[in-house]
Amino acid sequence: METLETIFTRRSIRRYKNKPIEAEKLIQILKAAMSAPTARNKQSWRFVTVQTEEGKQKIMNAHPYSMMLQSAPCAVIVCADTEVSQDFFQQDCAAAIQNMLLTAKDLGLGSVWLGVYPNKERAAGIAKEFSLPSNIVPVGIVVLGYGDEEKGKEDRFDPAKIHAEHW
Amino acid sequence: METLETIFTRRSIRRYKNKPIEAEKLIQILKAAMSAPTARNKQSWRFVTVQTEEGKQKIMNAHPYSMMLQSAPCAVIVCADTEVSQDFFQQDCAAAIQNMLLTAKDLGLGSVWLGVYPNKERAAGIAKEFSLPSNIVPVGIVVLGYGDEEKGKEDRFDPAKIHAEHW
Repeated sequence: METLETIFTRRSIRRYKNKPIEAEKLIQILKAAMSAPTARNKQSWRFVTVQTEEGKQKIMNAHPYSMMLQSAPCAVIVCADTEVSQDFFQQDCAAAIQNMLLTAKDLGLGSVWLGVYPNKERAAGIAKEFSLPSNIVPVGIVVLGYGDEEKGKEDRFDPAKIHAEHW
Repeated sequence: METLETIFTRRSIRRYKNKPIEAEKLIQILKAAMSAPTARNKQSWRFVTVQTEEGKQKIMNAHPYSMMLQSAPCAVIVCADTEVSQDFFQQDCAAAIQNMLLTAKDLGLGSVWLGVYPNKERAAGIAKEFSLPSNIVPVGIVVLGYGDEEKGKEDRFDPAKIHAEHW
């Protein structure tokens, strides 16, 4: 799919078919994540892939808006190693996640980004469920699967949010 | 350009031709920014476009790694309205910035992302130079222009950063 079409038609998908995603698609999505830029090229992101019922249940235990994992087949917990980046790790992970969402769309998959850090309760819950070391912070979760809803393009462009040369 | 080609070939460009970018390309880049998802759909991003010599000098006064603006024709300061989002604004802006970098690549432009917030000195300097209100935080700067360097694809994929089901 053309880049701009992917960017402009990607939407958050919250209803999924109970159908696994192909291993090579998941790898492609992780490769795209690791093609995102990072501050000082620190590549602070780390990834936990979750495809078992047990793993999906652990996410649902810790995150209040993850119930689509009852049907969605896959989630990727995007984490940061805060020993590698103490300052820009949220932004590093967010850029990687955006690449993941776009790649999912391009590969015919639906996706939704669940916010974790800096919500302390969610971050602590995910860290506990997945036994993350203390330097590994779960920043967000990307849910992936074949969508079971159709959503049209949404135009969020708002020229009032653009200021030329000064505020 | 195909989505995956754009994602996998985008690189940070730091040498630019002294040549303006087309107004419609800048608008397309800003539309792509505003097509990124935001936490709770708050759309907390705001944008200051800078194309004058005076404006570029103000960025160079405040940001130590922005000297490519001596030749690059355009920068966009990506800000967050922290009255709109107090928690996820860094991630909202980073996802928008990633869409901007990819759209620039697709349109034949080079780009580089300069980190600002949470570096306090840079954020305060940009806020002062551009008279930003106290609720508007400059998160990052996207430099845009026709590139004057060629960079090949770089493969950052590292399977050791992927953990299946648990850490």
